[in-house]
Amino acid sequence: MPLPTRKQVIETLFAKWQPVDLVETIATEEALGRVLTHNYHALYSIPVVRASAMDGVAVISERFANGIPDTGQWVIGVDYCRADTGDDFDDRFDAVIPIEKVIVSETGLQIDPGVRVTKNMNIRPSGSMIMKGTTVGQAGRRLCSFDLACLAMGGIAQVEVYKKPRVAFLPTGSELVPLGTAVTRGENIDSNSVLVKNMLLEMGAEPIMYPIVKDDRQQLDSTLDRALAQADVVILSGGSSKGEEDFNARILEERGVALFHWVAAAPGKPMCVSIIENKPVINIPGPPIAMLYGMEWCIRAIVHHLLHIPMLKRQAIIGTLTEDIQAPPSMEVLCMMDVQNTPEGYRVKQKPWRNGSMVEGLSAGALYITELGVEVKRAGEMLPVYLLRGEEYFDA
Amino acid sequence: MPLPTRKQVIETLFAKWQPVDLVETIATEEALGRVLTHNYHALYSIPVVRASAMDGVAVISERFANGIPDTGQWVIGVDYCRADTGDDFDDRFDAVIPIEKVIVSETGLQIDPGVRVTKNMNIRPSGSMIMKGTTVGQAGRRLCSFDLACLAMGGIAQVEVYKKPRVAFLPTGSELVPLGTAVTRGENIDSNSVLVKNMLLEMGAEPIMYPIVKDDRQQLDSTLDRALAQADVVILSGGSSKGEEDFNARILEERGVALFHWVAAAPGKPMCVSIIENKPVINIPGPPIAMLYGMEWCIRAIVHHLLHIPMLKRQAIIGTLTEDIQAPPSMEVLCMMDVQNTPEGYRVKQKPWRNGSMVEGLSAGALYITELGVEVKRAGEMLPVYLLRGEEYFDA
Repeated sequence: MPLPTRKQVIETLFAKWQPVDLVETIATEEALGRVLTHNYHALYSIPVVRASAMDGVAVISERFANGIPDTGQWVIGVDYCRADTGDDFDDRFDAVIPIEKVIVSETGLQIDPGVRVTKNMNIRPSGSMIMKGTTVGQAGRRLCSFDLACLAMGGIAQVEVYKKPRVAFLPTGSELVPLGTAVTRGENIDSNSVLVKNMLLEMGAEPIMYPIVKDDRQQLDSTLDRALAQADVVILSGGSSKGEEDFNARILEERGVALFHWVAAAPGKPMCVSIIENKPVINIPGPPIAMLYGMEWCIRAIVHHLLHIPMLKRQAIIGTLTEDIQAPPSMEVLCMMDVQNTPEGYRVKQKPWRNGSMVEGLSAGALYITELGVEVKRAGEMLPVYLLRGEEYFDA
Repeated sequence: MPLPTRKQVIETLFAKWQPVDLVETIATEEALGRVLTHNYHALYSIPVVRASAMDGVAVISERFANGIPDTGQWVIGVDYCRADTGDDFDDRFDAVIPIEKVIVSETGLQIDPGVRVTKNMNIRPSGSMIMKGTTVGQAGRRLCSFDLACLAMGGIAQVEVYKKPRVAFLPTGSELVPLGTAVTRGENIDSNSVLVKNMLLEMGAEPIMYPIVKDDRQQLDSTLDRALAQADVVILSGGSSKGEEDFNARILEERGVALFHWVAAAPGKPMCVSIIENKPVINIPGPPIAMLYGMEWCIRAIVHHLLHIPMLKRQAIIGTLTEDIQAPPSMEVLCMMDVQNTPEGYRVKQKPWRNGSMVEGLSAGALYITELGVEVKRAGEMLPVYLLRGEEYFDA
C-alpha cells in the first residue's frame, strides 16, 4: 500500500482534530506579525471638521466676489489667519490662498492680483484622510507595518489577535549534547533545537523549548506529559524509526490516535503524526534536513491553521536545471537547491548533501520538491524553485 | 535645476558620512535576523569517529570472509553489538548489517543467509555530516533559521553580529495626539510612530521612539540633542515644508551639513537629508504615504548600510495595468497598487488614495515607482510591481 502523501496527512489531521481558538488583546503598535480575529473599522473621520490642503492663509471667500478686496487694514485672526497643510481654522474662513501668493506683514496682507478665490478652495473636507467606519484592519493575514499604520489611522489602539500557538519541542536522543558543549566520540550536537525554535518564530508561533531527553521510556513519557500541559502542539525529534531506542513512535502509537507513521515524503519518511488529548503530537526524524522538511510542510500547516492564515508561498523563481534530479516517483522528495544568477538567467542544481556535508544542504538558496509520479527531471528543463532568502542575495 | 534623485541623495550621503561599525556577541539561537561580522567555520567533524548509517547490528567483517559464520553462540558486546542510525560503536566492529536482515535473541544472532558483509559497510566516516573547518556562517546576510542551524551544527554557540542600528523617531506637530486619545477638531492621530517603529523592526533596526514634540523651536532642539546622544540615526516627521511652524528643515539646515532639502521623489518631496555630529538626520514629511516612501528608500538604505547587507528587493510580479498612470517625468512617484489575481494573470492599478482615504493607499497589495523621464504608463502595459505581502494572499 502506498504511504500517505503530505496532503493526505494534513487533511486527515485537520478532519480529526478540533483546535480551540485562543485570543488575546494587545497594543496595536506591538502587533507586528500577529493576526486579527476580526475586521476593524475607523473610529473617527479625519480631518474631524476640515483641514487646509496647503501652507497658506485662510480667508472669507464672499469678500472676493468682486475680485481682490482692499486688504491694507486686514487684521490677523479677524480678516484672515495662517493655515498650513493639515491645519484646521476658525469657522468664519472658508478658503485658503497658497502662501506663495501672499505677503504677510505688520501692515496687513498683500495678495497676488492674479489670485481668484472660491468657497472651499484648497480645503480638505472632513474624512478626506480617513472616514469613520472605513475598514482599517482585515482578519486573516499577518500584520505588517503598513497594516498597523492603517489601524492607527483609524484610532484603533488595541487589537484582538490570535494567541501565538505554543509549540513544544522535545529533542530526544542519548547521543545529543547541547550546543556549546565540546563534542566527543559518539556524540552529536543538538542543532535541531536552534533550527526548530527559529523556524517557529518565523512562522509566528511561540516556541517552548525542552532540554535534551535521553532515550528512556519513562523520561520521555513524563516530559511529554509536561509538554501537553503547556503547549498547543508538541514536536518530538528523532527516535522515529525502527532502532532499539526509537521509543517516540511507539509512545505516540500507544498514547494517541496515531494517524500516520511513515509518510510519502523524504527525507523524514518515518515521521509519525498523532493526536493526544486533542493536540497534534508530531515525531520528526532527527537528521536536520528531515527536521526542516517536516517543519516546513507539517508544523507550518498546523501553526498557520491555528492562526487562520493561508499557507506560506515562498517566492518562486524559474531556473534552468543543470544536472538531472532523480527521485522515487512514490515520494515527494525535498531537494536543497543551489541557485546561480547568470546573464542567461537563473541556473539551478541539487546540492549533494546526502553524500557530503549536511551543512551544504542547509545553506542552500532554494527548495524544490519532486512531484509524485515523476521519476526524473532532466538537465535543461526549466524548474520552479522556492527561494529561502530575498532576491538581493542572488545578484549576479 | 532639477531636484536630486533618490540615487543621488543616497550616494552623496554615503560619501560624506563615516559610520562606525558597532558589534556585539550573542547566543547563536538568539541571532534570527541578525548579520554576522565575519564568516564562521565548523569547530568539529561529526561524526567524530564514525556512525552507523542505519538501524542494525555491528559486526567484524573479517569473520564473514568465507560467508555467514556460525553465530549460534555469539555474545552481544563481544561478537556483535546493536548500532542504530547515527550510533558510534566499539572499534573492534567494522560493518553494520541492517536490522531487517537479522534476528537478535537470547540464544544468539541469526543472520539472513543472503547477506554479504564487507569492511565499512553501512558506516558513515568521520566528518560525513559536517567536516571541521567547513564554512557554516557567512557575513553579509540576515540570518534565517536555516543559517542558524548551520552555525549550530558547526558547534558555534555564540556569534559576533552588527548591533541593531539605533534609530530615533521624533514625531513633530502641534496637531498630533497619541494613538488611544479621543480625536477632536483640528487634531490628527500620530499614526506615523506605529508605522515607523514597525518598519524599523522589519528592517532589523532598534527603534527609539520619542513622544510627540510640539512645534516649538526650543523643544525641538533639545529633543534632537537627546536623540543624537542615544541613536545612530535620527528621523523627524513633519515640519519639512514652508509652513509657519515647519521648524524641522530649518533646524537641520542650521545645525548640520544639510545635504539636501527637496528631492525628486513624491509624495514626500520636501524631505531633508542632513548629517549632524556624523549621524544622518532625516526629516520626512508627515503624511503617512510620504513617510512610508521616505522610510522605504532612504531610512532602509541607511539601516542596511549599517548592517552591511544589500538593499531589500521585494518580490516582483508582472501584472497588466488596467488604468493609465500619469506622473511628472522629473519625479520618482510612489504608487500604491491594487493587485488582482485573475485566470488571465495579475491585473494591477493605482489606488486612488490622493483624493480619498489615505488608508486605501496604506492597505495596497504592492508598490510601483514611476521612472524618471517617463510621463505615462498606459492601460494594457505589463508592469512589474513589488508585493507587500506573500503571494498566498493574492490567490484567485
